[in-house]
Amino acid sequence: MKIKPIEWQDGKIILLDQTRLPREEVFLEIPGVDGICEAIKALRIRGAPAIGVAAAYGLVLGAREIMEESREDFLSQLKRISDTILETRPTAVNIFWALERMKRTASGFSDTEEIKSALEGEARAIERETAEDDRRLSEYGAELIHDGSTILTHCNAGSLATSGYGTALGMIGAAFERGKRIQVFADETRPLLQGARLTTWELMRAGIPVTLITDNMAGHFMKQGKIDCVVVGADRIAANGDVANKIGTYSVAVLAHEHEIPFYVCAPVSTIDFSIQSGSEIPIEERDAREVTEILGVRIAPEGVHVLNPAFDITPHSYVSAIITEEGVARAPYLDSLGKMRKGERY
Amino acid sequence: MKIKPIEWQDGKIILLDQTRLPREEVFLEIPGVDGICEAIKALRIRGAPAIGVAAAYGLVLGAREIMEESREDFLSQLKRISDTILETRPTAVNIFWALERMKRTASGFSDTEEIKSALEGEARAIERETAEDDRRLSEYGAELIHDGSTILTHCNAGSLATSGYGTALGMIGAAFERGKRIQVFADETRPLLQGARLTTWELMRAGIPVTLITDNMAGHFMKQGKIDCVVVGADRIAANGDVANKIGTYSVAVLAHEHEIPFYVCAPVSTIDFSIQSGSEIPIEERDAREVTEILGVRIAPEGVHVLNPAFDITPHSYVSAIITEEGVARAPYLDSLGKMRKGERY
Repeated sequence: MKIKPIEWQDGKIILLDQTRLPREEVFLEIPGVDGICEAIKALRIRGAPAIGVAAAYGLVLGAREIMEESREDFLSQLKRISDTILETRPTAVNIFWALERMKRTASGFSDTEEIKSALEGEARAIERETAEDDRRLSEYGAELIHDGSTILTHCNAGSLATSGYGTALGMIGAAFERGKRIQVFADETRPLLQGARLTTWELMRAGIPVTLITDNMAGHFMKQGKIDCVVVGADRIAANGDVANKIGTYSVAVLAHEHEIPFYVCAPVSTIDFSIQSGSEIPIEERDAREVTEILGVRIAPEGVHVLNPAFDITPHSYVSAIITEEGVARAPYLDSLGKMRKGERY
Repeated sequence: MKIKPIEWQDGKIILLDQTRLPREEVFLEIPGVDGICEAIKALRIRGAPAIGVAAAYGLVLGAREIMEESREDFLSQLKRISDTILETRPTAVNIFWALERMKRTASGFSDTEEIKSALEGEARAIERETAEDDRRLSEYGAELIHDGSTILTHCNAGSLATSGYGTALGMIGAAFERGKRIQVFADETRPLLQGARLTTWELMRAGIPVTLITDNMAGHFMKQGKIDCVVVGADRIAANGDVANKIGTYSVAVLAHEHEIPFYVCAPVSTIDFSIQSGSEIPIEERDAREVTEILGVRIAPEGVHVLNPAFDITPHSYVSAIITEEGVARAPYLDSLGKMRKGERY
């Protein structure tokens, strides 16, 4: 059973509301650009590749709302809408990448109706290519997973996060499909519990053995020799291989390093931001304190307590054993190995 | 306002039910030994020194329930009750230590009424000495905290955990009382959120600035240079300085080591188990999976998911910068430095 977190149906976006998983599978019909912005901000759809796809379809909806008929005015409005979508979440580069690609497509046509039609085609292409990239990188990644191994993952980098086959969970799934006897330890991933809610749900559906642990147990199980490798996704990768990913990834990387366990990052080339030299240039989204002080609506901390809630952290490239993309397996020095994966035609 | 998590009043134990903090301050009257066993198992009272005190008062209640009048039969029944209390939680050595001390006291008297009276006196002495030890170790510990520093702590090692002044939070409080400008980062400490629920509550009552973070953020803030030292309590310390403490402590210790941040453990000598040579001999309590899959009664993971829930982990002594007890500050090699703190008269 394939999971489709986002689908384009009859000119509307249909979203699986991930905030309500695993309790309920609720699909939302998103009629306009405001709706997709709300859904991205609220993490109804999340995961760097998936919000790239969502941003692209969001711009298709936005283009339909433009009244201007002159090409110049139309493109100016399109840029304004694109900027609005871009502001939803600052860390993942895939939104930026998808919207740039959409705007470039738009600029190739002169008639506004043609532009609207081309945008829809381009969004579909982004969705299709994202799924194809997942498949390819998963095949490369599966090679790195040994028979009999236990893989730790953090957050959710599965179908739900990409709209395709998944990145980290994609390579785990591909190894499983090849008959490798593997099991997964899933960090619950506070504050929003994507590991507990989404990764376990996806793996259980796929029949892959999974054990749920709290984030602070990872080191303990590494020390006990229970973890053979770590696989995570990414929200943005700098040209030098520094990785922005869900908060807690850096801690897992340090622990893996200390225990000499390979730490793999799995993401499409569209997640690599070749315009920045290191992770220090990646903006880290700070989210609402209530994500920490409340869990699914239940208050867990005193009223008025001070909270910090960075949604992501940066893992320096020195902790990364390899970065797996649809172009292959990159290893240090990443400036070279990632640089060779750059697709000129995509930017 | 002093917090008393356990108090002996008119021949009964009065407990502050810590499972209901910070929402409600509910005091329970514990009339018998079954009640104290339930309260310890359910973590209504928790923290190694505090459950030592609870075990001692529990044995006082248990002694009253003994019908046997001959000294020999009485002591035999007392041992049975002591064993029952001992089975509540396996990791903290303080229960064992307190009960051994109580039984030795009992064995010094011939009349059963005298024994009962002596047990009450001994339990009071354990409570009083625990509080005195806290004060002394806090003064030693305060020396290690520099003016202007930010201290990370994990779980709760405050008044709630000791029935006295606290250990880790005791030394933080003592530094604050001396006028040092400090602030605390509190790990929320999944699964049972003692950091989010209890440590923030204690520190806010004391007026000490505190920031609540999820466990997986600690590495991120260390990398940003925001943390100057780590202070935690302990549930059992081996003769070589290996430390059993709340799950997640080991991960914090590795992260502190990686960032060259001092990692301090603060506990009374009664927490040191001189009978074991290393942490590998310390039993780790495995608790109910629902502590991971449910948060305050709210389900966060799919039904049927496999879970592991070790309540503690072991931090090897090589990660420990110092162990602070009421006898002073021990540093490596711990076999020597802790050995000198051993009080012959206590065992």
